[in-house]
Amino acid sequence: MRITVLGTGTVGRTLAAALAERGHDVTVGTRDVSTTMARSEPDAWGNPPFAAWSADHPDVAIAAFADAAADAELVVNATAGTSSLAALEAVGDGLAGAILVDVANALDFSGGAPALAVSDEGSLGQQIQARFPEARVVKTLNTMNASVMVDPAGVGGGDHTVFVSGDDPQAKEVVTELLATFGWTDILDLGGIGTAGAVERLLPLWIALLGTLGTPAIGFKVVR
Amino acid sequence: MRITVLGTGTVGRTLAAALAERGHDVTVGTRDVSTTMARSEPDAWGNPPFAAWSADHPDVAIAAFADAAADAELVVNATAGTSSLAALEAVGDGLAGAILVDVANALDFSGGAPALAVSDEGSLGQQIQARFPEARVVKTLNTMNASVMVDPAGVGGGDHTVFVSGDDPQAKEVVTELLATFGWTDILDLGGIGTAGAVERLLPLWIALLGTLGTPAIGFKVVR
Repeated sequence: MRITVLGTGTVGRTLAAALAERGHDVTVGTRDVSTTMARSEPDAWGNPPFAAWSADHPDVAIAAFADAAADAELVVNATAGTSSLAALEAVGDGLAGAILVDVANALDFSGGAPALAVSDEGSLGQQIQARFPEARVVKTLNTMNASVMVDPAGVGGGDHTVFVSGDDPQAKEVVTELLATFGWTDILDLGGIGTAGAVERLLPLWIALLGTLGTPAIGFKVVR
Repeated sequence: MRITVLGTGTVGRTLAAALAERGHDVTVGTRDVSTTMARSEPDAWGNPPFAAWSADHPDVAIAAFADAAADAELVVNATAGTSSLAALEAVGDGLAGAILVDVANALDFSGGAPALAVSDEGSLGQQIQARFPEARVVKTLNTMNASVMVDPAGVGGGDHTVFVSGDDPQAKEVVTELLATFGWTDILDLGGIGTAGAVERLLPLWIALLGTLGTPAIGFKVVR
């Protein structure tokens, strides 16, 4: 599949690499390619500069937002949630008709510790669907660490849940098949994009658990 | 232990009965005893009137809020979250020094479907601790159905998590022991009462799952 991953941080890199490994034709989208490639320092999280990652992943292309999704069948929003709408605006027409997989969380780091930035206009997933009505938005993978997204078996043998929310059943089916290629076995279709808020609100618990357990190797299992 | 359960709804009844069965000296608190006992119709959820339940549970006393907690070592807040602060004000002095187990969720039913009533003043657990600084508040049991609270083994053999949040380690220890008598085995101490908001925000997901799965027999397991 032709897949564009928006965002060059840990989540974007992890998903891009995992998708390329599975034979997809992957492009990473960024605001400004030359700026992104010129960075030579680790980012705020200590990740190596993108150019170094890119050199290790020659099979993953890089393009500016406006060009990145031109031919994409599936676009992954792995940008920071608080700037996702601006990034998607920059992508523009490439979103029409595409499956738009939103894995982002709107986290506010202004107070030091991350907090969920709650909007009166609904969840991020809902806001994205409302702003881009021709995209087929599927919210998923926002309830775990990047490494767990693509390797669920690394936590508890993989016996935990990934949620899928979206209004387009066929888009959810495609995403469910992709998730299965990462090793997910408990893929729970929560319903329409209106349920994205429920999974976005899991983030404060994830953050509290990170503090208490001291590890991001955490999964949520819906026992039923 | 001398335990007072505030609230005569399903949660209050279920906890009061389970605690009395385990040999505790249990009193249920209500705003006005004669009004509560005079009701002869099922409530909005179809529960039988409290007087009928009370006749079946002669070992559980009933008292007005102001009297209910006078000698209590532990007080359970099982009132509706949106009116919990008012109920606790009515209890008054009985809360000083007591362990106050807050199992409530502030749900807004005004729109038909229940929604989480988010306050600018923090989670319900935090608001209660702030308003009653001499009570030792422990937030727990707010992430599952009443029947699951007292019988976790009824869902997935009991392999799911109950969270405990509070500032007083000794109070959390007492609550943890009580939870164990219900059959809880995965009792996760999240930290101070500041973490109550993280578990209260699980409610929208619980509500979405109730709709999707069609059953309240749901548990959350933190896989780690």
